[in-house]
Amino acid sequence: MPRLPRVVQPRNPDYEGLLRDSFSRQGIMGHLGATLASVQPGRVVIEAPFRPALSQQHGYFHAGVVATLMDSAAGYAGFSLMPSDSAVLSVEFKVNLLAPADGDLLRATGQVIRSGRTLTVCRFDAEVRKQGVWTPCATGIQTLMSLPAKAAGRTAG
Amino acid sequence: MPRLPRVVQPRNPDYEGLLRDSFSRQGIMGHLGATLASVQPGRVVIEAPFRPALSQQHGYFHAGVVATLMDSAAGYAGFSLMPSDSAVLSVEFKVNLLAPADGDLLRATGQVIRSGRTLTVCRFDAEVRKQGVWTPCATGIQTLMSLPAKAAGRTAG
Amino acid sequence: MPRLPRVVQPRNPDYEGLLRDSFSRQGIMGHLGATLASVQPGRVVIEAPFRPALSQQHGYFHAGVVATLMDSAAGYAGFSLMPSDSAVLSVEFKVNLLAPADGDLLRATGQVIRSGRTLTVCRFDAEVRKQGVWTPCATGIQTLMSLPAKAAGRTAG
Amino acid sequence: MPRLPRVVQPRNPDYEGLLRDSFSRQGIMGHLGATLASVQPGRVVIEAPFRPALSQQHGYFHAGVVATLMDSAAGYAGFSLMPSDSAVLSVEFKVNLLAPADGDLLRATGQVIRSGRTLTVCRFDAEVRKQGVWTPCATGIQTLMSLPAKAAGRTAG
Repeated sequence: MPRLPRVVQPRNPDYEGLLRDSFSRQGIMGHLGATLASVQPGRVVIEAPFRPALSQQHGYFHAGVVATLMDSAAGYAGFSLMPSDSAVLSVEFKVNLLAPADGDLLRATGQVIRSGRTLTVCRFDAEVRKQGVWTPCATGIQTLMSLPAKAAGRTAG
Repeated sequence: MPRLPRVVQPRNPDYEGLLRDSFSRQGIMGHLGATLASVQPGRVVIEAPFRPALSQQHGYFHAGVVATLMDSAAGYAGFSLMPSDSAVLSVEFKVNLLAPADGDLLRATGQVIRSGRTLTVCRFDAEVRKQGVWTPCATGIQTLMSLPAKAAGRTAG
Repeated sequence: MPRLPRVVQPRNPDYEGLLRDSFSRQGIMGHLGATLASVQPGRVVIEAPFRPALSQQHGYFHAGVVATLMDSAAGYAGFSLMPSDSAVLSVEFKVNLLAPADGDLLRATGQVIRSGRTLTVCRFDAEVRKQGVWTPCATGIQTLMSLPAKAAGRTAG
Repeated sequence: MPRLPRVVQPRNPDYEGLLRDSFSRQGIMGHLGATLASVQPGRVVIEAPFRPALSQQHGYFHAGVVATLMDSAAGYAGFSLMPSDSAVLSVEFKVNLLAPADGDLLRATGQVIRSGRTLTVCRFDAEVRKQGVWTPCATGIQTLMSLPAKAAGRTAG
């Protein structure tokens, strides 16, 4: 199993303030009713309660909503370990759906498994709560690229 | 390059009605302002105009929104070739982000590349329009599972 | 994090014999010098010592060799939990390379994270040993399909 | 569909010599009996004839062999467009298996779909020939990283 980096120490002491500020600028998070449930160096959790507006055709959370929460959770997990002048871009991600996302609350956890100078690799997982019971519904891997904040608007790689 | 199935013939003559009906029950599509731009056997296009509610922190379409449109476009591309009593579930997908999704209109195209009895493989692509110019912003692959419609609520595989 | 299935119990009491027999028929395993290092229900480890015949251009294990060992390790992890009359096929897999596979011994571990009737999802990880120190070099996810053994020659899905 | 870069022009006039030289140093290519069947800027084809030494348990090409050829084909497709002092590393890839790789000759084609300064995205496809008929057996996407040749031994990102 990939071990976490031995010392998970943010390189930016104010990472949490920057992270919460960036999260608040992701319009889609508010639109989905998603909130930051936990912020730690290298590990971020995002949750969203079910609403019909988040559903696929059978009334479960849409796989794209699950992916959106996982992508942001892992993106911010990576961001939490980057230097203060960094912007973060998703390079790619991969999602396996393990069970229908049928429940009243969706929780996505992103976790850094390799933090490099240019590229960061995270895993992400999602669980859904129904009648108090949590069931894993998705898992996956994401690659992030770190670049100087001022360049973030110009390129994805 | 993978060739499309030689005869792309729907097995269900009323596939388009069922597909549009299913799309209308995906609450997330309405919530994102997404519409079916084109429906053909084995190929479906979904579009959504930009709104701040769909953005990531730099003001572009969030990668999760791009993935949501691509997942539905490819899911319905697969659904269009399935028998009439089928439900379709995403098994897994993979997204590569090619450029920031910076523009006023996002377009996702899903296309079947292998249509099997149980599993269907699709590719999906997204483009974004800015000042009239279209730029590819994402590409990927998706695996779908077909199962009898009445079983769709119980299992994802 | 995805939990392992609560009861990891083989449905086939002779799973290990069948598994070792199948492994011995994978010509590529012998050709790469790969051996079964551990076989447990839902978890299989394969190892191969370094030889120049397994290298990429910088003298490390080629990423394809890493993928080959991980694909077989996870495939057999899934196979170990299937009924006795099953054949197993890889549907898809995804690999993230975490570090150059630079070392004298490569170890791939496959582990079932969801065992379904038709589809099984595994994760796989690879580590490489150099001067006695193990370093994670790759991680990924695989989807397997179980089908009756007699059908295995005819279809991949 | 992602368009190819408008001008597929190698930045390194001697790209083909460097590419063939690098290929000859990939020990695994010789070990699998693989050869360069075509080299063009942004597009490389690798082939290998069937031998039992390349097989999985049913006597087809092992999925890992298919992945190895596709990974190298796409890696060299990317390499062909990089500056002369570059080394190339696979960051990640994803493979979907479309049909059993049952035949006497395996052909993998890698093609650049986005060539960036740091990251390159390729697609790859494999076909297998049986009794003169070619059948697609796999498709996928790969991300490559370009780095100064002298750094290639030290890091994967």
